[in-house]
Order: sequence, then C-alpha cells, then structure tokens
Amino acid sequence: MRNVKLTIEYEGSGYAGWQVQTNGLSIQEVLQVAIAAVTGEPEVKLIGSGRTDAGVHAAGQVANFRTETTIPAEALPHAINTKLPDDVAVLAAEDVPEGFHARYSAKGKTYRYSILNRRIRSPLARARTALVSRPLDVAAMRMAARDIVGEHDFAAFQSKPNGKPSVRTVTGLTVETVGEQIDVLITGNGFLYNMVRAIAGTLIEVGLGKRAPDSLAELIRSCDRSRAGPTAPAQGLCLLEVKY
Amino acid sequence: MRNVKLTIEYEGSGYAGWQVQTNGLSIQEVLQVAIAAVTGEPEVKLIGSGRTDAGVHAAGQVANFRTETTIPAEALPHAINTKLPDDVAVLAAEDVPEGFHARYSAKGKTYRYSILNRRIRSPLARARTALVSRPLDVAAMRMAARDIVGEHDFAAFQSKPNGKPSVRTVTGLTVETVGEQIDVLITGNGFLYNMVRAIAGTLIEVGLGKRAPDSLAELIRSCDRSRAGPTAPAQGLCLLEVKY
Repeated sequence: MRNVKLTIEYEGSGYAGWQVQTNGLSIQEVLQVAIAAVTGEPEVKLIGSGRTDAGVHAAGQVANFRTETTIPAEALPHAINTKLPDDVAVLAAEDVPEGFHARYSAKGKTYRYSILNRRIRSPLARARTALVSRPLDVAAMRMAARDIVGEHDFAAFQSKPNGKPSVRTVTGLTVETVGEQIDVLITGNGFLYNMVRAIAGTLIEVGLGKRAPDSLAELIRSCDRSRAGPTAPAQGLCLLEVKY
Repeated sequence: MRNVKLTIEYEGSGYAGWQVQTNGLSIQEVLQVAIAAVTGEPEVKLIGSGRTDAGVHAAGQVANFRTETTIPAEALPHAINTKLPDDVAVLAAEDVPEGFHARYSAKGKTYRYSILNRRIRSPLARARTALVSRPLDVAAMRMAARDIVGEHDFAAFQSKPNGKPSVRTVTGLTVETVGEQIDVLITGNGFLYNMVRAIAGTLIEVGLGKRAPDSLAELIRSCDRSRAGPTAPAQGLCLLEVKY
C-alpha cells in the first residue's frame, strides 16, 4: 500500500473548515471526492496536519492518504486538480514511508495572520485580511511579540480547552509591514485551538494601546483565556507551511 | 450645485464591468444606487474616468457626480459604503470645481497587470492574477517593454477600433517580480480599448520565447492588431490610479 503526501493550497472563504462537518462543505471532503475520482478507490481517508476553521486559508496545508493506484506521484496534482473546484488545489504529491502521518509526524507549523490597517475596508483584500481601522503601533506589537517566543503553557490563548497539555514552543514571531498590511508570522512546534487568532487579537490590542507592550509575559503566566484579547477573525489567517 | 469626486476600489469578479449594461450588474450602477440612497436624489449620474471590463479590478478608479446634498465630503465615503456590497468601496470624496470631469479632465492612468508564473493554479491568487504555467523570461519582457514607452500609434494593441485617433503616450512600463508573481506596471496619458491587456498578452509571448524581445517596435509600426499577442485575461488587470 502506498502512502502519499499532498501539499495543498485553498481559499477557505467558501468552506466550513478543513474537517468533514455535518453543517457544511469541508475542504477534506472535496479533496477526498476528487482523489476517489482519480484513483477509482471510493474510500479515501485523507489525514490533514491539523484542522483549519471555517474561512481560514492555507498556502501549504499537508495531508496524506493510502492508495494502491499506479499513477505516479508527480502526475497526481494535475489529475486531482482537474476534479477540484477553483478554490482548492494540490501543489505537490510524493510517496512517503508507511509510517508518515500528516498530523503525528509534523515537527512544526508556520501561520501568517494578515491585518489591513486603514480607515476604510478594502474590496480587494477583504477575503485575506482582517480590517483594523484605527492606526496600529507596530513597534509596540513587536515588543509584545518577544514575550510569546519560547516554551510556555499557552492556556491563556486556547479556546475550548480539552484537558490535554497546553505547553507549546513558539520558535519565531515576527511582525512585518507591506504598505497598509501588517503580517504576523508565527512558527511553532504546535498550536492549540484558536491560539494564533487569540495571539493576533491580543497583539492588535497592544497595537491599539489598549494593552501594555510588556504585559504579555504576565498574561501567559495567568493561563487565563479571559484576560487575553479576542479571537481575531478567521479570514486573516493562513497556514503557510508544515515542517516534518 | 456641488461637484463631488470619488476615489473607488472594487473587486471586479462579480460584475459585468464599470459601465451600466443591459446584460448584467455594473459597478457604476451599484454606486449610483448607493449614492442615491445617501443623498436622497434619485437621478445620480456618475461619470467614471473610463470603463473597466467585466472581471477587471480597481484600487483607484475615479468618478464624479453633481449633488445638492449638504453632507460634507469627508462624511460621504462611510455613508456610501454602508449602502454598498463588500466588493465595492469609496475610499475618498472631495468637492471639486464645476468644470471637473472624471474622464475629460484625466491627465493619465496607471494600470497593473498581474501574472502568476507557476506550474499549478493558485486558489488564493486566482481572482487577481492570470496564470502562466511555463516559465517566463522576465529580462526579455523588460527589454521588449522599452519599445512600448513613448508616443506611438497603438492601433496594433487596440480591440474594436472606433475610427478615432489611436496615438497615445506611454510614460512608463516596468516589469516587477514578487515571488511567483510578475507585475507589469504601465502609465500613460490614455489607453485604447483593451490596450493594456493586449500589451500584457504580447509581453507574455515574449517571455515564453514565442516572440523576439526586439520585435515590438516593428509590431507597433505595423498598426496591425492581428500581429500582436492575445488580449490577456481580465482578472489580471487592475486600475491603480488616475492622475488629474
């Protein structure tokens, strides 16, 4: 049995999220249908590196599935893409060892949270950014970001705690500006549910002057979700890369 | 009677173009409806700097309309935007002299044509770029672009000639790369129908090696549309700025 790893890009606006849902179309679902049409194997089980929520995008989601198809890996992206809607595409496929598991084998991930910082909403950027109308102090956001880097219990940034350990390591967090856009880039060995969006929401509060730039270490120590900022809107988030 | 100038951004994917059409919703139309709702004057005549085709975007379209409303110009963008769909927004409004006409007063325009140069289509960039799957030689495109700059009869790049003069001045043409994206930026005193898209289609042929980088001067002299490249797809085009 072959084990095939896929790298996937999607525009999440039209989906109920990555994972098969009862309440709407999922990205996993449209991929499974397309893969089944290509391989002729009806029962495709596509394992993603992790869920992304409704409206969240990916430029480099990774998933794997087992198959007995004889189609070579390099021909799979084009074959699958012809069966997919415009807002989902397979960028690459490769055969991987039997033990490879997109979720359990993942060593780290990089997310980008994109903020559009201008007074008036943008029709062209609306699907990929969250609008913040008042001016953000990027230097203050960068100062605050330093307290997030490192190994911490990130319970203060976790929605719906599940009783499992909430210690994670953030290896990098940068705040970059390109014109009116502010990108928060965050890399870590793993992320709790809604953690990136809660961090983004908290950094936005720092940028607005609602929260001191040196207050995040104490916030993290509190492990108290109610003391952190709100979960920033889904459309600003994009899963850029999964490392193995 | 006041004369009000608007600067407008739109995502053209969902429209039959700028101008009121019989065959679909136009951007001019949704703006006129929104302005009428704000001013209470039902007969709004919005004059655009020029038409944009179905699927073409704008980050800085300009238009003007006459009104007797007492709403101050600085309050108009927000008031109008609350009446507009998400894919159209007024970025700025100002009172201008009676003689100002968005089309006739225009001194020049800047367009961007965005190409995504990679093997596989991109769900995230699909609405704002044209995909070219084979590698483009950007240096060859830049060489060819030099022959376009200057005052020329651009009949070779005009769709549907209308018998009017086709001499225009292109003051600048640059080819910039950002990752997998290639942006053709073109500024001129005016553009013929489909001229930017025909130039983009011709430069793409140069980049693909189908056409010599030093062949454009002769092509322009020929004034023969059938010798130029195809009209590149609408979604790659964006009207960036109109100068007065």
